[in-house]
Amino acid sequence: MQGITLFSCSFFTLTIIFLIHYTFFNLPSPPPDKAALLDCPAFSPWCNSNTLLRRGPKNPTRHLHSSAVPHHPLDPLTIKEINKVQAVVKSHALFHNQIYAIHSLVLEEPEKSVVLAWKKGDILPPRKASVIARVKDVSHVLTVDIGTSDVEVHEMSRVSGYPALTIEDMISSIRAPLSNEEFNRTIIERGVDLADLACLPISTGWFGKREDNRRLIKVQCYSVKDTVNFYMRPIEGLTVVLDIDTKEVIEISDIGKNIPIPKAKNTDYTFPAQNGHQLKLVNPISLEQPQGPSFTVEDEHLVKWANWEFHLKPDQRAGVIISRAMVRDPDTGKLRNVMYKGFSSELFVPYMDPTDAWYFKTYMDAGEYGFGLQAMSLVPLNDCPRNAYYMDGVFTAADGTPFVRSNMVCVFESYSGDIGWRRSESPITGMGIREVRPKVTLVVRMAASVANYDYIVDWEFQTDGLIRIKVGLSGILMVKGTSYVNMNQVNQEESLYGTLLSENVIGVIHDHYVTFYLDMDVDGSENSFVKVNLQKEHPSPDESPRRSYLKAVRNVAKTEKDAQIKLKLYDPSEFHVINPSKKSRVGNPVGYKVAPGGTAASLLDLDDPPQRRGAFSNNQIWVTPYNQSEQWAGGLFVYQSHGDDTLAVWSDRDRPIENKDIVLWYTLGFHHIPCQEDFPIMPTVSSSFDIKPVNFFESNPILRIPPSMEKDLPNCRAAYSA
Amino acid sequence: MQGITLFSCSFFTLTIIFLIHYTFFNLPSPPPDKAALLDCPAFSPWCNSNTLLRRGPKNPTRHLHSSAVPHHPLDPLTIKEINKVQAVVKSHALFHNQIYAIHSLVLEEPEKSVVLAWKKGDILPPRKASVIARVKDVSHVLTVDIGTSDVEVHEMSRVSGYPALTIEDMISSIRAPLSNEEFNRTIIERGVDLADLACLPISTGWFGKREDNRRLIKVQCYSVKDTVNFYMRPIEGLTVVLDIDTKEVIEISDIGKNIPIPKAKNTDYTFPAQNGHQLKLVNPISLEQPQGPSFTVEDEHLVKWANWEFHLKPDQRAGVIISRAMVRDPDTGKLRNVMYKGFSSELFVPYMDPTDAWYFKTYMDAGEYGFGLQAMSLVPLNDCPRNAYYMDGVFTAADGTPFVRSNMVCVFESYSGDIGWRRSESPITGMGIREVRPKVTLVVRMAASVANYDYIVDWEFQTDGLIRIKVGLSGILMVKGTSYVNMNQVNQEESLYGTLLSENVIGVIHDHYVTFYLDMDVDGSENSFVKVNLQKEHPSPDESPRRSYLKAVRNVAKTEKDAQIKLKLYDPSEFHVINPSKKSRVGNPVGYKVAPGGTAASLLDLDDPPQRRGAFSNNQIWVTPYNQSEQWAGGLFVYQSHGDDTLAVWSDRDRPIENKDIVLWYTLGFHHIPCQEDFPIMPTVSSSFDIKPVNFFESNPILRIPPSMEKDLPNCRAAYSA
Repeated sequence: MQGITLFSCSFFTLTIIFLIHYTFFNLPSPPPDKAALLDCPAFSPWCNSNTLLRRGPKNPTRHLHSSAVPHHPLDPLTIKEINKVQAVVKSHALFHNQIYAIHSLVLEEPEKSVVLAWKKGDILPPRKASVIARVKDVSHVLTVDIGTSDVEVHEMSRVSGYPALTIEDMISSIRAPLSNEEFNRTIIERGVDLADLACLPISTGWFGKREDNRRLIKVQCYSVKDTVNFYMRPIEGLTVVLDIDTKEVIEISDIGKNIPIPKAKNTDYTFPAQNGHQLKLVNPISLEQPQGPSFTVEDEHLVKWANWEFHLKPDQRAGVIISRAMVRDPDTGKLRNVMYKGFSSELFVPYMDPTDAWYFKTYMDAGEYGFGLQAMSLVPLNDCPRNAYYMDGVFTAADGTPFVRSNMVCVFESYSGDIGWRRSESPITGMGIREVRPKVTLVVRMAASVANYDYIVDWEFQTDGLIRIKVGLSGILMVKGTSYVNMNQVNQEESLYGTLLSENVIGVIHDHYVTFYLDMDVDGSENSFVKVNLQKEHPSPDESPRRSYLKAVRNVAKTEKDAQIKLKLYDPSEFHVINPSKKSRVGNPVGYKVAPGGTAASLLDLDDPPQRRGAFSNNQIWVTPYNQSEQWAGGLFVYQSHGDDTLAVWSDRDRPIENKDIVLWYTLGFHHIPCQEDFPIMPTVSSSFDIKPVNFFESNPILRIPPSMEKDLPNCRAAYSA
Repeated sequence: MQGITLFSCSFFTLTIIFLIHYTFFNLPSPPPDKAALLDCPAFSPWCNSNTLLRRGPKNPTRHLHSSAVPHHPLDPLTIKEINKVQAVVKSHALFHNQIYAIHSLVLEEPEKSVVLAWKKGDILPPRKASVIARVKDVSHVLTVDIGTSDVEVHEMSRVSGYPALTIEDMISSIRAPLSNEEFNRTIIERGVDLADLACLPISTGWFGKREDNRRLIKVQCYSVKDTVNFYMRPIEGLTVVLDIDTKEVIEISDIGKNIPIPKAKNTDYTFPAQNGHQLKLVNPISLEQPQGPSFTVEDEHLVKWANWEFHLKPDQRAGVIISRAMVRDPDTGKLRNVMYKGFSSELFVPYMDPTDAWYFKTYMDAGEYGFGLQAMSLVPLNDCPRNAYYMDGVFTAADGTPFVRSNMVCVFESYSGDIGWRRSESPITGMGIREVRPKVTLVVRMAASVANYDYIVDWEFQTDGLIRIKVGLSGILMVKGTSYVNMNQVNQEESLYGTLLSENVIGVIHDHYVTFYLDMDVDGSENSFVKVNLQKEHPSPDESPRRSYLKAVRNVAKTEKDAQIKLKLYDPSEFHVINPSKKSRVGNPVGYKVAPGGTAASLLDLDDPPQRRGAFSNNQIWVTPYNQSEQWAGGLFVYQSHGDDTLAVWSDRDRPIENKDIVLWYTLGFHHIPCQEDFPIMPTVSSSFDIKPVNFFESNPILRIPPSMEKDLPNCRAAYSA
């Protein structure tokens, strides 16, 4: 009976379809046209956006991946290159005739010096792949030379942890409990049809011996009956602990049997489900560019816009990587280096509920799930405006087969009505001056759906040299079932660990920390980090009628510990990355500053296991010397790690950072106490921080831009179909 | 000779033209058509935007002020009403045959209960004017009943300070030093032609006896030779202390004779001055609404957009006042009260230089200069997008004559490409869900040019119930002359009090604090203020493998001192204004929270005279019981006040605030260490804070809005002229 029910269940059908997608190339008969499956223009099932979108315009940007070749030393691996690496790995002694899984197969970027020396037209440096694979419970890190097929197996220091889950790990884990009778019995006892089950693979974290020596995952389940939003229908208290590799059920914790499953009513957020009750609040509005966008994307990855130029690529772990960001100096006309590489390195999302089914929810989304792997295809017109350019991700399945995540990143110009600079002379002077310049920016966007949450990550480039890095949170809360239907049933002393959002639904309090890696190269690689502290001074009464004022005091950080920064509102500083050997005309060191925002700080005890693993959130700012192996703030192997390879561990080595190639790390933080408005889907909440020129330009770099003029604006008709 | 030079000087000609504008009705022969002069559509010289704009489209919104009548109890005084009040005042015993000046003549808003009870169609409550006037060195506050001509003279408690400067005070003050020989001699000795002089009227603040018992102003001057941007050419160290009323020169401090006046080169920011070197970075981009904007402005002041409705008016002191902000509940279809009144109440801008010519620069722009009075006409297409609606200010000159500040406020819809909410199902579940809703907002904007600075104030309404209040800083720095041309000349020990921006130019460090009055009425007037503190808890080892988590602990503020909030990153709280007698369906009190941003805190000593006057910046958040007389955070009379009538003084009375009609105060703060990019005009820097529904709606209020669809978007041609 179970088998039949399962088979007829639409949710599992979808899961199986997906599983088939990701393991397609393992099936005995390959698809008839591999090229068509991999190239998004062909609308193959691999191009998930095209097949799954129910509406919307045609795919705006088309790429031919099957014939793609690299053009830049930092270009991601092409399908051909991945296929080559897959073959090399398969035949390598370590893997030959073994069952193995490839957890990561990406470009091994050339040495920084090689990339900096490379110019368009030069031949590319040797293309290499970095592969993380597991065979017989051992993680291996390999370098594969794609040209020569040479394989270098790296000796790994004995750090804890495992590579990120593969999609196959996740999908097989959520299916595994169904082969356990006790699990099926409790599901049925709770009144849930097995056909209505939706389960999530939840990283266990690491809390001690229990999580040592094998890959574990906790599976929790929901009822998908009568709603796509199963997240609002938890089967509370039921946790299955699985061995990921063997799929053995190690433990079933089943403590919430008395807690009802919340109702489906009012949880479905899809547009068709609102039938008859749609709320049309505004007329159509659109960003229109009669002469087309002002940016180009050369060779698939090199973005040129206004005074900016940078390399952009999707990444399975980081999501989006910006490299070689350079801005044109308006005085010299020359491009100047700003940032060698920037990306979201790790996330840390601890939930604030210490009870059995919740304490371990302390996600590290990039290293555990793959922040890019979870970034789904963007929806044209809604995720990004009309004139957006879309970039696909080319990733690999667990067997090394490449697949295309179409429309994973978009690039568009934005104008919100904001002002770049302005000046009206005041009535005091009576001068008739009204000079205003609108602000137009370029946005690079991706949106990752890490289980319930949707993270929108924007890199916004401004013509004045500023880069704003913004993270928006939307999607669905992780909620907890409860027997309460009204707060009047709750004893004042009792902690709900969150907010009662609807009948039987608690939104659990949690934090989000997103740590960015920013390898700043301000006019060159050798930089220093300077704290410009605003210190209070007290002039004597005969010096001044003032009793106090603030003075800027500069302190150059000598070593890493000087640059472990906790922000202080009552002892404020600016934080500059300067080039100590390059001065402006009047003698200021050229620099960029990080302008904080989203300043929520992690308050967990430093020795709390989740905080040890998420120790990169101990400070808002860190600076480390450049080290190609220190890119992932939670460590290379985050899953079940003990926190022995984090940014905090590296930084505590206290290496010299003055006049060195340095990396700046900034953590955007959010405390989130849910409220009813977050139910059943959250309006976006955003925070951002800026990296901003400070004495980098001789003067305002957008002084000479023109105002908008009526003659340049479009003449629009009422509707596209008109 | 002086007279002739003066007369030939274009700057003073302009000043005089302006003076004539503002005193026009005092001239023996009135203009031929008063109506034409006051109604902006007629492009009269009073409509400064129309005459002074060198380019740009026609005035997009036309208003007939001469025939305007009030429609709403909160509508500002009409021209007819002001004329009536002017006549009543003139004939009143206090002023008859006296020389007097009207510093403020505005609507005296009816009692809150009367406004709340009023419905469209009801007759208006009696129209009254509140008048602040000075005669024979005494400030009077009057209420004039416009219908009956009754005048009530208010007994003022003995608070210190004077009313805001009039434009006439400012213009006459900057002319006065020219009649002083010593002043003229030193100007000429410094090599400045008197014809090239531009001076600013600088509030003296209050530092003790010297500033007692008479209205004082400090005049500092600049050379306007070869640049409109005279602010970059200070005649450093020269300060003239004037009696504002008598124009007597009390003191000339002349200590900077050795400091050269910085060169004009590269300081002019006007577009024609860039001739041949314009920097075109982007193609035209425009917000287009093929079916037109989604908002209406009824009866000149009532804005209706999407699910919002509010009353909007310009104000001479506050700039913009938002009243009766209500949002429609998507479940009931009913409008619900959010905020009775919100406006920027005061600014505090202390400079961080204790020396003779700088220590007193501690501006309070609303109470000293009039934040609305300094808000000039917005520039269509550049200050606000194409479809903006413009609202004029109707203000009064010192003799009570009304004048029109055209296009002072704009209202427009914005879409930047941001996302209202989104959900992609992750590859884990394999469900083909892609639901995204774009974010469209409504912005109310003004831009005040308080001497050198341009403050852009935005009230941004979101469909999800959030109001974002954003202040942007642009315009021109207040700079200090120096003999240094390069930092290599500066001894490391020496403090410049700022940054060397260009040869001989120092940008002086300063702060900005903008304090907002927010009379929240969440579903009614009786509200409470709740701190929701995130406290760290430590479970015991047998309770949980976790060692720490955060718990939300609610504390209702009983009295004002409970609500004097300094933000703490390491002891975080949310700050809710709730209605304790209104609960959501599941029993949470309905509320709005203030979500801080721009959190720079004033660090000056509490007993430093400027900080005593700007004591409203001692905390970021305050809550006071509603009191119609407590609206101006720095006191009713701010000019030379001693700080005896500030928000801090009121709050220290520690009145009960639980379940009362309460007012929330929030201060946006900025520390500003200038950098070369701020020269010669600053790219906009913005900060914002939000007031945001928290359990106010039963669920996400924009769940049911539709996505954008291709068919609704406009079909645009390349250019308007094409």
